[in-house]
Order: sequence, then structure tokens, then C-alpha cells
Amino acid sequence: MSYGLLKGKKGIIFGALDSNSIAWKVAEQAHAEGAEFVLTNAPVALRMGELNALAEKTNSDVVPADATSIEDLGKLFDHALAKFGKLDFILHSIGMSINVRKGKDYTDINYDWLTKGWDISAVSFHKVMKTAWDKDAMNEWGSILALTYIAAQRIFPGYNDMADNKAYLESIARSFGYEWGIKNKVRVNTISQSPTPTTAGNGVKGFGGFIEFAEEISPLGNATADDCANYCVTLFSDLTRKVTLQNLFHDGGFSNVGVSERVMKRYEK
Amino acid sequence: MSYGLLKGKKGIIFGALDSNSIAWKVAEQAHAEGAEFVLTNAPVALRMGELNALAEKTNSDVVPADATSIEDLGKLFDHALAKFGKLDFILHSIGMSINVRKGKDYTDINYDWLTKGWDISAVSFHKVMKTAWDKDAMNEWGSILALTYIAAQRIFPGYNDMADNKAYLESIARSFGYEWGIKNKVRVNTISQSPTPTTAGNGVKGFGGFIEFAEEISPLGNATADDCANYCVTLFSDLTRKVTLQNLFHDGGFSNVGVSERVMKRYEK
Amino acid sequence: MSYGLLKGKKGIIFGALDSNSIAWKVAEQAHAEGAEFVLTNAPVALRMGELNALAEKTNSDVVPADATSIEDLGKLFDHALAKFGKLDFILHSIGMSINVRKGKDYTDINYDWLTKGWDISAVSFHKVMKTAWDKDAMNEWGSILALTYIAAQRIFPGYNDMADNKAYLESIARSFGYEWGIKNKVRVNTISQSPTPTTAGNGVKGFGGFIEFAEEISPLGNATADDCANYCVTLFSDLTRKVTLQNLFHDGGFSNVGVSERVMKRYEK
Amino acid sequence: MSYGLLKGKKGIIFGALDSNSIAWKVAEQAHAEGAEFVLTNAPVALRMGELNALAEKTNSDVVPADATSIEDLGKLFDHALAKFGKLDFILHSIGMSINVRKGKDYTDINYDWLTKGWDISAVSFHKVMKTAWDKDAMNEWGSILALTYIAAQRIFPGYNDMADNKAYLESIARSFGYEWGIKNKVRVNTISQSPTPTTAGNGVKGFGGFIEFAEEISPLGNATADDCANYCVTLFSDLTRKVTLQNLFHDGGFSNVGVSERVMKRYEK
Repeated sequence: MSYGLLKGKKGIIFGALDSNSIAWKVAEQAHAEGAEFVLTNAPVALRMGELNALAEKTNSDVVPADATSIEDLGKLFDHALAKFGKLDFILHSIGMSINVRKGKDYTDINYDWLTKGWDISAVSFHKVMKTAWDKDAMNEWGSILALTYIAAQRIFPGYNDMADNKAYLESIARSFGYEWGIKNKVRVNTISQSPTPTTAGNGVKGFGGFIEFAEEISPLGNATADDCANYCVTLFSDLTRKVTLQNLFHDGGFSNVGVSERVMKRYEK
Repeated sequence: MSYGLLKGKKGIIFGALDSNSIAWKVAEQAHAEGAEFVLTNAPVALRMGELNALAEKTNSDVVPADATSIEDLGKLFDHALAKFGKLDFILHSIGMSINVRKGKDYTDINYDWLTKGWDISAVSFHKVMKTAWDKDAMNEWGSILALTYIAAQRIFPGYNDMADNKAYLESIARSFGYEWGIKNKVRVNTISQSPTPTTAGNGVKGFGGFIEFAEEISPLGNATADDCANYCVTLFSDLTRKVTLQNLFHDGGFSNVGVSERVMKRYEK
Repeated sequence: MSYGLLKGKKGIIFGALDSNSIAWKVAEQAHAEGAEFVLTNAPVALRMGELNALAEKTNSDVVPADATSIEDLGKLFDHALAKFGKLDFILHSIGMSINVRKGKDYTDINYDWLTKGWDISAVSFHKVMKTAWDKDAMNEWGSILALTYIAAQRIFPGYNDMADNKAYLESIARSFGYEWGIKNKVRVNTISQSPTPTTAGNGVKGFGGFIEFAEEISPLGNATADDCANYCVTLFSDLTRKVTLQNLFHDGGFSNVGVSERVMKRYEK
Repeated sequence: MSYGLLKGKKGIIFGALDSNSIAWKVAEQAHAEGAEFVLTNAPVALRMGELNALAEKTNSDVVPADATSIEDLGKLFDHALAKFGKLDFILHSIGMSINVRKGKDYTDINYDWLTKGWDISAVSFHKVMKTAWDKDAMNEWGSILALTYIAAQRIFPGYNDMADNKAYLESIARSFGYEWGIKNKVRVNTISQSPTPTTAGNGVKGFGGFIEFAEEISPLGNATADDCANYCVTLFSDLTRKVTLQNLFHDGGFSNVGVSERVMKRYEK
């Protein structure tokens, strides 16, 4: 289904890697709803990924950019502004912890890796918004979104320093969102998405069992990447103009369930 | 603007009184998006109001029902089911405190009035959902919404026992939403809306000054009834299927601002 | 251990039934810390219970009172005020759902029982504070506490309408706490306690399995009734004078853990 | 008043600068309650400060340590362990933003200063706990506390990147607190304190007006540094053993008040 909800809207989508990526699904769905956008990812990710296929399908340009580099971001926004004029939406779907990748425990993290992961996963969101701010890149009533996870509020062992990064990311959304709102009525929110079997997610130890637990807790089951793309479309549309500074749980109800009957069955003797 | 987001969807809208009502705006917007629905309000409100004009404009039936009466609710749902078959959405926009109306302070409330206001403002939401439940009235992936206010979380003097009623209402949304999700994938959420100058709102003492305070705190300004109608449309649509058990702040950012520069100006010497 | 933390402090303790009750433990601990108090419970509970033993041990009077009766509460406070002069602390540990007792599902609750349970479990807290308010019964910097449960925020199947009652109770704490703070610097808080194997708790279906789940989630294990009594003592003491309107989780960490390694072991293949 | 609540307890207190510091007050109060501890601060702060007077008064050693240096922290803990054996409590009261000091707006922050401030204000808490972890420095049922501010949840203009740092700090408390709980029953919490006119606080632009606003919102008025010291004592004591992973608002009720009558008076015409 498609409704033309994003007809005429222009944006930038960060973080599509392959067809399992949430950002990939958002790009497909935003295209179906009439949006035009630039796709971007880190140069190293572009080498690994299949982003050209998505670009072709959605009639988009791909502009490589390291989201921790103000210089790269400047070139990316210049490209988008030259092509589209001011923008209506930005999706930030970026996260990476070297400590997770290398199997370091939270109590034994490497602080250089911590800093690098924080810069990539959280500060990059500030840098993206600062670049847009300096270039006056957003139309009034534009919408900026970042993807996050409930580990920012509660413990999920194995999520490691990404939990702290997500807490920082969500705080950036509020801090910068306040400034954007006053400056030109741009809204900034985060979506706290169900655990999603993306290429990145599947790399986390014990992720399969955890997906099952989350599925059993959530009355509607886990939200998929496709579900998330639909939700992002509503948040980029003109129908949600007064929603800002929020962290929006998109998780089939997981966040507000303490325990479910399905989980309790495992505790019956 | 309209997108056909609710094409083919059927529902019931509680609480439209006059053209200032949020429910009135939701009805107009839902109609514009292709929905069909039954309008309902308490018999006494119907005598005061102008609901027939809305019914005509939106090609809807009006069915009077006291939302605290299981009997009335039964007739209402029978009417809607006979007309539409199963339903896709319900809006609950009902609230009334006799203690507020009569100017009783929170420390001196009348307990009979407390009970009556609780029944009307909060328990009615349970009764609506129980009636729908018993009649198996909801389609899969249906959406049930109630309107609430941030006084459920924080003190707003003058809001009185309505604060406690809204806390109870939000809890009902979670408690019943869990059951609905498991039963047939229906989602239940509340929207926590900016203070809105409806006929009811304007009756609260000091409301004008408070609207101004909220406007100064919120980076996007207060959300209007029209804004709220747009947001409700997204939450009734198929694009938000995995959002459930949530209390969604729709308030221009008010909920996450501790203080704004505009408010601080009043504290400068 | 005891420190004299409550030396010279006077209060009323609601809800001790037998030696499994949290209120019972609070009474013992408050006595050990030097407090004097009146014990009270519903007349029917007094007939079942062993409260006289506690009264003797703590050198207290027992005054039967139905906490939903303004008349009974008036007599109770008159007794306490005559004996002690103004009071320094109140503990509200009262909760009962007829729907839970009778095994009614949340989707099929009896509304008369709902109203009765709401009155007993939640409104009684307002009535207690209103009685104290009307009699000007609290000393400056006094402390009023009620016990609650995280079902006010998240779903715990089987907790039924008590979840909504606890949400209402917590809202009363904020609403009335604001008034008390301004009037004479009295603080009002709720403690959200781990599931506790009291006589009431053990009556809930599936409670044993749930206690085990909560134990596995909580990094410090479940908080016991004795632990809770210690925590209450700190909140009645002069060391916590500026803590007010808070819902304080006392649960070994349960509230901020999404899942634990111990729980995940049940999901390993 | 003093109760011997911390008799026999040993700890480390970070962040006392002068007699306006919260950490200074905590040291005085902890000493009065029977605790012994090592005082520490950054070498540069020690040169500016008057810490020796406090050390003398509380019979403590001062060990300079840069809390971002694992090497310095190692020496500090070695000193404390040699003197006391294992520890019972740690207070982290450290925060500094170069961007705030230099008057950089949030939309124009310097990223090197951002990283430095994040390391000092937030990561230092991880480094302190990692050092304690590696040296197995904590007794069972020990208590680790850090001071934070509600800007981690809501916007307070001028608080700048410290808001994001505090969000990260609070997340560290949860992430590391989970590990500590399981390892040896140590609890980790943060206290979210009223704005306090410390030497650091007074350096923030517009702080005076903001203190007044907070005072008018809070039904009990702002919590002072002395109040905070009392609260810390309860959280280091054996009476709060099952409180962990919590962010505890100590603010006279500020956090749960949307608006007060005193503030609304400024909006009356």
C-alpha cells in the first residue's frame, strides 16, 4: 500500500547496508510514498554493501560519508542541497561498538574503542544536525529521526557500551531538538525499535534467544524492519508535526510489559 | 491535504461536543481520510451540542450513549456492528470532574463526585473495551485510542482529581491493551495532548495563563486540536501497527522541557 | 542493628495483618528505631489477624478503622492526636481486589467489585490524607508513605485491576503531596516494592513462579519485607526531608533490567 | 544530629573542592555518622581548593587523582585498600564541560572539548568502577553513588553538553550496576539533585534566575547541599541495600511538578 504521504519531500538516509537494514526498508517505503533522498553510509560499509541496487530502485544518489567527519558531512549536505534545495527529513540509523565486536565485557572495555564507538553511534547524530544547522539545510516543519534501543533505559546483557551510547544519542535528540524547534520548527525524535535481525543485530552473542524472549513478552510480537519503515514514514509526514523530543517505543508493546503469560510458562513446575 | 489513509476503515468516535472538541476534529479528519464511523456522546451532551451538523458533514450516524452504562454501550456497538461489521478503530475522548466544575479543592473533594468523575473519565474506557471484547467487535490490527493529559505524571494545580483519573485511564490502556494484543492484534494507546482550548478546557480556572506557559515551554508551541486529529489518523492507520501500550506525548515538546529561555525571561531582574 | 533514627517520632501504621505483612515489619523496625505509633487495620482483618501480639511487642495501641470510612478515620486520628500530639509519619499498606480474589479476568471484571477495590486500595490513601489535613495532624517535615507495585507501569498478568488501582494510588501521592509540601513541608512518596510473599501476595495465582522470575531478573535478588522496613525507616527519618512526590523502586534492580543472563539461560537451546 | 549510621564503613569521596561542594558536605556528614574515607580530586583542583582543611576535620587522607586516568585511579585505590581493606562506599561528584565554560552554544560545540568533558564527567565513573572491579575493592553490600541532574531527561537551556554527559553517566550506573549486583551485591545509584549553588553551578549563565524558578516549582523548595549529604548517608547505610540501578530525584518535588501556583502568578494579567 502507499498513500503519497511523502510526496515532494526530500531527505537524507544514513545507514542502509543491505536489504536487512532498517534504513534500507525506510528508503524503499519513503520512495513508495513519494519522497526523494540521498543515501549515505561509511565508505567502508559501501564497499561491503549492496547500496547501489537500492539507489537504482529508489532513483537516489549514493554519497559516501564518514558520519564522524564534519568534512564528509559537509560534502554530503552540499550534494543534497544542490540537488534538492532544503531538506524535509533525515534518518540516522548508525551504531557500532568495537567492544561488542571484539567480545570485550562491559567491565573490561577498551577506552579507545569506547570513544570510537561513542563517536560513531552517538556523536555522529550531533554532527549531522550541526552540519544541517550551519548550512540552514532544513525546511520548516522538517523531521529528524534516529533509531535507538530500550537498552538506553534498561539492562540487556551483551548490549554493552551500546546501551550508554544510545542513552547519549537520545539525549542529543532532546538537546538539539529543542534548538531546532525554536529555530525553524523542525522536530527531532528517536524510535526505540524492537530487536531486529539485521546484519548488525545478528552479530550480537545470544541474539537469537533474546529475539525469542522479546517476541514472547510483546503482545503484538516484535516489530520488524518493515513495520519500522512504516512508522518512520508517519513521523516524516505532515501528520505528526507537533511530536518532538520524544523517544517513541515501536516494539509491539515490549516496553510496558513486565512479564507475559508465555514467559511465565517457562517458570511453571 | 488527505491521503486515503483510512480508506475502508470503520470506527466509533466518542466525545465530540462542538467544533472546539478534539473528537470533532478527529471525525472531520478521519472522514477526509476515507473512514466511516458512528458518532456518540452522552444524551445530555447531545442536547447541548451541535453534533448533527458533524454527522451530516461526515455522513455518520449519531447514537446517544452514556459511556458509563454497559447497556447503552451494548446498543451503540450493536448499531455499529450492524452497519459496518467489525470495527477498525475507536476514539475515547471523554473526561469530566464534578469536583473541578464545582470548584472543590483537591484537599476537600466530595467522594461521591470523585467516584462519578472516575467512572465517566476513566472506567468508561474499560467499559467501552469490554463491550467491544464481549461482542468480538474489533478487526485484527485495529486501533483503540484515548486522550489523556500529562497531569497523570506531573502536578498541574487546578487539574484536581482529573490527574488521578488520567493516571487510571492510562493504566487501563496498558492493562486492556495487553489482552487485546494477544487476542486479536488490536493495539491500545493514549495520546497525551497539549492543553487545548476546548469548551471543557476553557472551564478550568486559570486555563488561559496556563496555555500561555505551555506555549512558552514548548519549542514547537502547543499542539492544536487539528494537529491532534492528524496524529490520531496516523495511529488509526496501518502504518503504526506495532505501536501499543504507549502513552504518546503530542505536545510540541512540552513534556521533555524543564524550562525554556522564554520562561526564564520572566525571572530576569 | 538500630540507630535511633526515629527517636521521638510519632505515627500511624495501616495494614499490618500478620508477621508476613510488610506493615508488620515496618512497625517492628520503626519501634526498634525509637518511634511510637498507633496500629490500625480494618475490623474484619483484626478479627483474622494477630495484631495484638505486635501491639504488645511495640508498645502500641490498636485502633480498628475501615480506611474507606471518613468517620472511622476521624476516630483513629483523634485517638492518635490525643495520645501523641501531631504526627511525623504515616504508612499506608492497604490493597485488595475482589476481582482478583474471585478469579475474575480483567476483561470480565465486575464493576461493583472494581469500585470497591479502588476505594479500598487507592481512594483510602486520599481519605487518610484528607483526614490528617482537616485535623492539621502532621508536624512540619513529616513523611507519608504508601506501598505500591510496578504493575502501575507495566503489565503483570494476574495483577488485574490492582494495576490500575496502584496507578491511581501513585497519582494521589503526587497530587496530595504537592498540597502537603506547600502547606507544611510534609513529603509524600510511594515505595514500589519487589513482589513479596505476604499472605495477600501468596493468594495471587502463579505467584510462586513469578517470584522466581523476579528473583532471576533482579541483580540483588528480590527485596524482602524486612528490607522494605529498613527502607521505610530511612524515608521516615530526618535524613530524607527533600524527597517528595517520588515513586521509589525498592526491588533489587528489577525495574531497570530488561532481561538477565539467568532468564536468558531458559531460552538457550 | 548523628546516628552512627556509617560506623565502621570505609570509602572514597571524589569531587570535594570547597565548602560549597556537595562532596564536601557528604564528607562532613559521613564523618559525623562514623565513616572513614579517602578524599580525592584532580591535582589542578587541589591546587585551587581548600581540601586540606576538610581532611583535617574528617581525619582523612587526600590523594590527588585525575579521574580520567586509570593509572591515577589505580594508585588511589591502592592507597585506600592499603589503609582500610575493602571499601563500603564511593561517591562520584565530578562534572565539567569546557563548552559551558567557554560559552560555546550547544549548536556550535567544539568536539574536542565535548570529548574531554564526556571523559571527565561521565566516563570517569566507568573508570572508577572498573578500577574497583579489577582490584576487587568492594565489600559485599557496598554502595556506589554518583550525582546527576534532571537535564539528563529534560531540556534546561545553558546546561549544554552536560545534559548528554549526565544521560551517559546515568546509563553507566545501570550498566555497571547490573554487573556489580551479580558479582558481589554492590548497589549503584545516581542522585538527581536540585540545582545547587556550588562554585561550579554558580559559573553557569543565568543560574540565579533558574534557582529561583526551581524554588518556585518545588513544593518543598530546592534541596540544599546539606540535604543531599543527608540523603547520601542513607544510601551508603545498610538500610537501603536493595535499592539499585535507580536514578533518585532529590529535589523537593521539582521533577514531578508541571507547573506551580507560584509560577502561574507570573502569568496572571
